[in-house]
Amino acid sequence: MKEAVFITFEGPDGSGKTTQSKMLYEELLRQGRPAIWTREPGGTKSGRKIRSMLLDDPGVELSPETELFLFAADRAQHIAEIIRPALDAGKIVICDRYMDSTTAYQSGGRGFPVEMIVALNEYSTGGLRPDLTFLLDVPSGIGLKRAAGRKTDKFEQESLVFHQRVRQKYLDLAQSDSRIVVLDGSAPIKTIFQVILTYLQNNCSIINK
Amino acid sequence: MKEAVFITFEGPDGSGKTTQSKMLYEELLRQGRPAIWTREPGGTKSGRKIRSMLLDDPGVELSPETELFLFAADRAQHIAEIIRPALDAGKIVICDRYMDSTTAYQSGGRGFPVEMIVALNEYSTGGLRPDLTFLLDVPSGIGLKRAAGRKTDKFEQESLVFHQRVRQKYLDLAQSDSRIVVLDGSAPIKTIFQVILTYLQNNCSIINK
Repeated sequence: MKEAVFITFEGPDGSGKTTQSKMLYEELLRQGRPAIWTREPGGTKSGRKIRSMLLDDPGVELSPETELFLFAADRAQHIAEIIRPALDAGKIVICDRYMDSTTAYQSGGRGFPVEMIVALNEYSTGGLRPDLTFLLDVPSGIGLKRAAGRKTDKFEQESLVFHQRVRQKYLDLAQSDSRIVVLDGSAPIKTIFQVILTYLQNNCSIINK
Repeated sequence: MKEAVFITFEGPDGSGKTTQSKMLYEELLRQGRPAIWTREPGGTKSGRKIRSMLLDDPGVELSPETELFLFAADRAQHIAEIIRPALDAGKIVICDRYMDSTTAYQSGGRGFPVEMIVALNEYSTGGLRPDLTFLLDVPSGIGLKRAAGRKTDKFEQESLVFHQRVRQKYLDLAQSDSRIVVLDGSAPIKTIFQVILTYLQNNCSIINK
């Protein structure tokens, strides 16, 4: 496997992506590796404006197309400002959500044709794909229940059927691409993290044994 | 020719698009026609936030891809909130800038491959093309000079060569599509408007003789 320097975390809301990605980032720092943690949407100053339009703008009903292009804009800026410069400087980039979220939510959830999403992902990333992706899979009911414990955003308020379609699209993606490693997100936090560490120790050299 | 109910005005900055499109809108109202005047970017509440990110955000350097997707997001929302509902209600829609601006500025000016822009325009408009487009053509020097008389935005601050590429792309578009009528934007305002009225009187029924 190609050395993993660009690692993304994916999964439904409430699956534990943020927790696990930050634990990995902290472990890398503890081991003296140059790493950054970042996220989408909202990894840049412009991206935070876009994130707030996408997730928290009360009284504004964005069309599904508007939403799609705003995510693409956020990603393009994130790559230009944060991800590319970090990779060019030899850093490990840990990113909470990336292009697979667009496929899962906008194609799986919203129903856009997958060819359109593939083309848009190509345009917005300029072909920059993660080396490795951890997909935290949880039954949609569990993710929603966990997410409900905090302030919910527009996507978290979607129906259970929407979230089931998102989950299925994630699993389809994982089946068609060996870059994506599926983890049981309903396991205890420490157990999941141990699986991540073991996977990295066995498959690449960014983590010490 | 198909009845013109969706009419766009295009041209470089300072070409007089806004003046002419508003004069047409007012003439339509004077004749008792149901019409709206709108513009891109910034035709909706979300669009105004996007417009300010695109044109006036000091200290933020948007990547060309970010810019491209923000224009697409603005257009998608504009269509969903303003243009489609107005057309569905039987109104004449006069729009200051639309999809040809993306082709001229992002493909001609910024250099994105034209196939990518064509695909994106298709995605962002859902195939909604204007019935008629007036292109106000002016030598790039003149447009810039006129625009310089007011507060300039990020695009107006681009180089003369950039604006020459934009102009050329507009003219190429007009040559390949009979929907686009080229007008001499360096003529006096009243002369241009008379040409527009005469064109509409001869070619469609939205204006009385």
